[in-house]
Amino acid sequence: MADLHAFFRPQTVAIVGASKKPGKIGNVLVKNMIACGYPGRIYPVNPKEEEIEGLRCYPNLSAIGESVDLVVVAVPASRVIAVAQECGLAGAKNLVVISAGFKEVGKEGLILEKELTRICRSYGMGLLGPNCVGMMDTHVPINASFSAVFPKQGNIAFISQSGAMLVAILDWSLATGLGFSRIISLGNKADLNEADFIADAANDPNTRVILCYIEDVARGQQFLRVARAASRKKPVIILKSGASQAGAQAASSHTGALAGSDLAYETAFRQSGVIRARSMAELFDLAVAFAHQPVPKGNRVAVVTNAGGPGIVTTDSIEMSELTMARFSKETSQELRANLPREAAIYNPVDVLGDAGENRYRFALEKVLGDQSVDSAVVLVCPTAVTEPEQTARAIIETHRIHPDKPVFAAYMGGKTLAAGAKLLAEEGIPCFTFPEPAVRALSGMVRYARARELPEKEKELELGGIQPEPVKEILQKVRQEGRLTLVGSEASQVAGCYGIAVAPIVLATSPDEAAARAQEIGFPVVMKVASPQILHKTDIGGVKIGVETPQEVKKAFIEITENVQRFLPKVVIHGIEIQKMMPKGTELIIGMTRDVQFGPLIAFGLGGIYVNLLKDISFRLAHGLTRQEIQHMLTETKAYTLLRGYRGEKPKDIGAIVEMIARTARLALDFPEIGEMDINPVFAYPDGAFALDIKITIS
Amino acid sequence: MADLHAFFRPQTVAIVGASKKPGKIGNVLVKNMIACGYPGRIYPVNPKEEEIEGLRCYPNLSAIGESVDLVVVAVPASRVIAVAQECGLAGAKNLVVISAGFKEVGKEGLILEKELTRICRSYGMGLLGPNCVGMMDTHVPINASFSAVFPKQGNIAFISQSGAMLVAILDWSLATGLGFSRIISLGNKADLNEADFIADAANDPNTRVILCYIEDVARGQQFLRVARAASRKKPVIILKSGASQAGAQAASSHTGALAGSDLAYETAFRQSGVIRARSMAELFDLAVAFAHQPVPKGNRVAVVTNAGGPGIVTTDSIEMSELTMARFSKETSQELRANLPREAAIYNPVDVLGDAGENRYRFALEKVLGDQSVDSAVVLVCPTAVTEPEQTARAIIETHRIHPDKPVFAAYMGGKTLAAGAKLLAEEGIPCFTFPEPAVRALSGMVRYARARELPEKEKELELGGIQPEPVKEILQKVRQEGRLTLVGSEASQVAGCYGIAVAPIVLATSPDEAAARAQEIGFPVVMKVASPQILHKTDIGGVKIGVETPQEVKKAFIEITENVQRFLPKVVIHGIEIQKMMPKGTELIIGMTRDVQFGPLIAFGLGGIYVNLLKDISFRLAHGLTRQEIQHMLTETKAYTLLRGYRGEKPKDIGAIVEMIARTARLALDFPEIGEMDINPVFAYPDGAFALDIKITIS
Repeated sequence: MADLHAFFRPQTVAIVGASKKPGKIGNVLVKNMIACGYPGRIYPVNPKEEEIEGLRCYPNLSAIGESVDLVVVAVPASRVIAVAQECGLAGAKNLVVISAGFKEVGKEGLILEKELTRICRSYGMGLLGPNCVGMMDTHVPINASFSAVFPKQGNIAFISQSGAMLVAILDWSLATGLGFSRIISLGNKADLNEADFIADAANDPNTRVILCYIEDVARGQQFLRVARAASRKKPVIILKSGASQAGAQAASSHTGALAGSDLAYETAFRQSGVIRARSMAELFDLAVAFAHQPVPKGNRVAVVTNAGGPGIVTTDSIEMSELTMARFSKETSQELRANLPREAAIYNPVDVLGDAGENRYRFALEKVLGDQSVDSAVVLVCPTAVTEPEQTARAIIETHRIHPDKPVFAAYMGGKTLAAGAKLLAEEGIPCFTFPEPAVRALSGMVRYARARELPEKEKELELGGIQPEPVKEILQKVRQEGRLTLVGSEASQVAGCYGIAVAPIVLATSPDEAAARAQEIGFPVVMKVASPQILHKTDIGGVKIGVETPQEVKKAFIEITENVQRFLPKVVIHGIEIQKMMPKGTELIIGMTRDVQFGPLIAFGLGGIYVNLLKDISFRLAHGLTRQEIQHMLTETKAYTLLRGYRGEKPKDIGAIVEMIARTARLALDFPEIGEMDINPVFAYPDGAFALDIKITIS
Repeated sequence: MADLHAFFRPQTVAIVGASKKPGKIGNVLVKNMIACGYPGRIYPVNPKEEEIEGLRCYPNLSAIGESVDLVVVAVPASRVIAVAQECGLAGAKNLVVISAGFKEVGKEGLILEKELTRICRSYGMGLLGPNCVGMMDTHVPINASFSAVFPKQGNIAFISQSGAMLVAILDWSLATGLGFSRIISLGNKADLNEADFIADAANDPNTRVILCYIEDVARGQQFLRVARAASRKKPVIILKSGASQAGAQAASSHTGALAGSDLAYETAFRQSGVIRARSMAELFDLAVAFAHQPVPKGNRVAVVTNAGGPGIVTTDSIEMSELTMARFSKETSQELRANLPREAAIYNPVDVLGDAGENRYRFALEKVLGDQSVDSAVVLVCPTAVTEPEQTARAIIETHRIHPDKPVFAAYMGGKTLAAGAKLLAEEGIPCFTFPEPAVRALSGMVRYARARELPEKEKELELGGIQPEPVKEILQKVRQEGRLTLVGSEASQVAGCYGIAVAPIVLATSPDEAAARAQEIGFPVVMKVASPQILHKTDIGGVKIGVETPQEVKKAFIEITENVQRFLPKVVIHGIEIQKMMPKGTELIIGMTRDVQFGPLIAFGLGGIYVNLLKDISFRLAHGLTRQEIQHMLTETKAYTLLRGYRGEKPKDIGAIVEMIARTARLALDFPEIGEMDINPVFAYPDGAFALDIKITIS
């Protein structure tokens, strides 16, 4: 992990490509660094100039005469490599490469970028960019960017993969009063990436909430580790775009077809405690909420309003989110009843009526915030002839000070009449909206975070007994040697068995006599299936016989199946006929695995059988860091779980056995990266135990 | 339907309860009416005053000396009845009752309100309110309200069941520049309701879009008829709150349990072409969109941006809505390629790059709007050193004028830098947002409307042959006479059969011998079930035998079932044993009916069987006005439809038979309002035909 202390707090900064000409990036960079009040020494570097913006200009880094902590580079791409080399020799610690013309322009740029990265690594220099706007820290202060705006000081760190969006948000922030601790434009992420800056912001005392706009993550495992640790300290809120561009990844399994690349991100965010924003508005509404309000202890909200309709709208919004309307204690209700007008509604939402002034709001808010059964409050103000928007704002601010551990949001529903009151609230850190729904959405995000940060500090490795990797290795090797990518059922079952997955006994037979003998060993009745990775729908071509009861029937079925296959698919190679113990019908489940390029194995669980793709009752988890507790959560997200608990009078099924099977599937996927996809479908769950009936494994 | 021409365009207005005292509602009403520039004659009425706000004041209505078209009433509730009486005698055409103290305060108020309504009806006077803010029309102009704000003239009619929300929105509208044609505060809806005003606004030439905030509808059937007719003329956009308060309605059927009261509204809105807004922000974003932009011909959107990141965010947002990214014609792509810089992205989104000025935007927008495969455009502008926000705004406005039939939206992502450009766009009717997602959401609402208004003008009554209502009447009568609320299976099957619903043959037998005889008539194998409305889960107590093959087995089963029931449920009355033809297994479906208090019968269709409540694969339609085409749509909304079309190589099922069964269920529900709930579960669908296997009917 990069140490970014020197990055944000350099003693000395050089700007290579500094310029005298107003409007040029090399000029803006020097001006910005001076204007922000940067307390260190600034060295413009340009061989053609003597002085820039009142500072002495140097022909090159070595001419400066002292080592430079941070170098901001804004020379044409073709010259960046030479500059980086010079930086390395001069002992620079970090580079911010503003210059464009790298990976984003195609193959030649990519070669240049790789060379740049190599040089920086060889000298142990950190590299931000290339092709970025730069970075700022309002507390140092430092502005190593060409942004036209240096934001208001605040406690939000904003990390953006889009420079344009970053600049847009800075411009917008001045109008809305949003303050930032840090601003980082990631550019091409050749070296330093979102995870590096999330990790550093997590330790930055001036940062209270970490905001990211990303289009991808650079390194999945690093991201997971960093995001998880950071989320335990402070909220990490991410707007991840590109979900629609995921496209269809080639997938031969059910699990693969059901998981898209966005799903891997969704799962990764959830498992690492990251709060995902669904829109730009939500990203910044959440930022404002976390920047000034405490994280609520629970999801019970009190609403105080001076009008019925907006109260109902707010109630709807609350009940449709993960929030719930608080139920007040008897004491609270009695106090409200005794002190509010007779027509006032004293249950939640509390309607203090249209003629309410400051005092009635203050009283009601104090009572509900003082109630043990309330975790947060939303205050609605509609303009009436007697509304006191500013005094009411003060009442909200002061009452919140008495209960600083409970977040308070406001919706001032109006225009000019309420503007001064709304401004007052915003200035004092009470998020204030025009309409109630965004307030509820932001509060709901806070509750999601409150739950998410309760992740255990370090995931225990799943302890699993009876694992035999060696035979698995041999089977996979054999399959690969035979030039196959798919295991036949008996091979897949062996693999699963080596990892302690309970499999309905299955063996491969290559002659009618062998089949009969094997069936007798397993015990009747048996199911017989043609063994060929090339045949997808075995039933349709007469490749399956169920309920075979005697050795004679086995022999007959062997011949029939072979004939059927030869008739329908004469060119297909068959490995023989598989004989499987016929299991009593259980609850049909699927356990599956597909592999994400960034985050590794994704484990799936849900309703199994032939309708898997139709019902889409599947929940996913990343195998990395998966705990038994997390698997339990995973189960509860599905309809299958309702069946497992015993539906309509049925006996509950062995949930422990399912958890175990999922854990072992995850371990198998982690131990053998060459396993590309895996479907166990169906798994039959019984009141006592669970068995894998059909296993498909594909290697890549 | 009320004729509201005189309501909005009265020649004369009296204000009863007019007051001299500033701040009093009776004073505000007079001032508002004068200030808005109302062109008719205004008569303040107050026996204690000679003159109010420069107008002669009258002691009562008859003293005015001419008939008064509209009377605005703002006297205490206790005096409203007498005033209404006086209005009737004086020949007033319409009343706006501002006064509170009616239904909203409880039982006594309700009595008063009923009396007020009775008087108004007896004189043929229209009544708005009581307990309302009043109404306005900016084109007349008239302001019969005590709102502090008279809005900017515009083409949005806003009808609100919440007075406070209406006032809040008016206050807010001044800050945002939103213009209205009409404003109606519905109050208690004692007489005139949302449907009356929707119908009238649909015919109002000054109104282009109808906006409603409602908490309920007054009369379901009227609403459906009116909303459907209005939606064909102009968009009707409704924010309906109170969804969370629906609570659990008592439901004994699957269908009833799956439908909540909000679902009836959801279905009613969709079937009548109403666009439902999900939040206050969406309501007004949609209003702005429809107020100035044409309805798009299709869902294909072009995006023009000067930055990549925001382009991706917009693309995501589009692909996750009912919109799709347009694919440009070859000519468009070639022209863009030839005229934009090499680094520009010429596929959708078109990235004109950060250094784009007005010209590049103008060129790109003109090309994409000129493309036949583009139905609408979203233009994104991020601030850069060379952005020309105002000139670009003009380019957008002018280009849109060349293609007035394609809606154009903008997102100006920034603050002060872009403010003047954004303002220019808003003034010229190009909806302009800070972030792209609300633009996409509003555009998506327009596309929903484009589809919704294609409803046929008048729904044909479903033509159904072979309907026999008489025997149904007799069966229901018999059940009621026996003091039962539930039909036994054979009765329910008879009822269904009378409406041409294909039922697996079922008969009731009361002795083992009768059972054997009946089974022989039906044909073996048969299923036998205990007939008792009191037994819910018949299988669990041994009340069902399947696959009974011979008369001997039937007799034996009859005795066994009877004994089982006597052992488990000795006190239950049984009607006998039902013998049903055992049908081959088909695709299991459910067709159901539950009754909504406002909108009448709701018809359900989806995956059937014992997992109905778990899978929740159900779509709903109101029976009123249901067409075969609509039933077809209804089918396609379910996963069951995938099965019907033939899943995984299965033969397609007889979809026509299912449509017919749904149509007949709907007709049965419409013809017999006493049927409260009905479940046909399962229906077995086959490649040729479909049969109802188990029918539950409850009467209310």
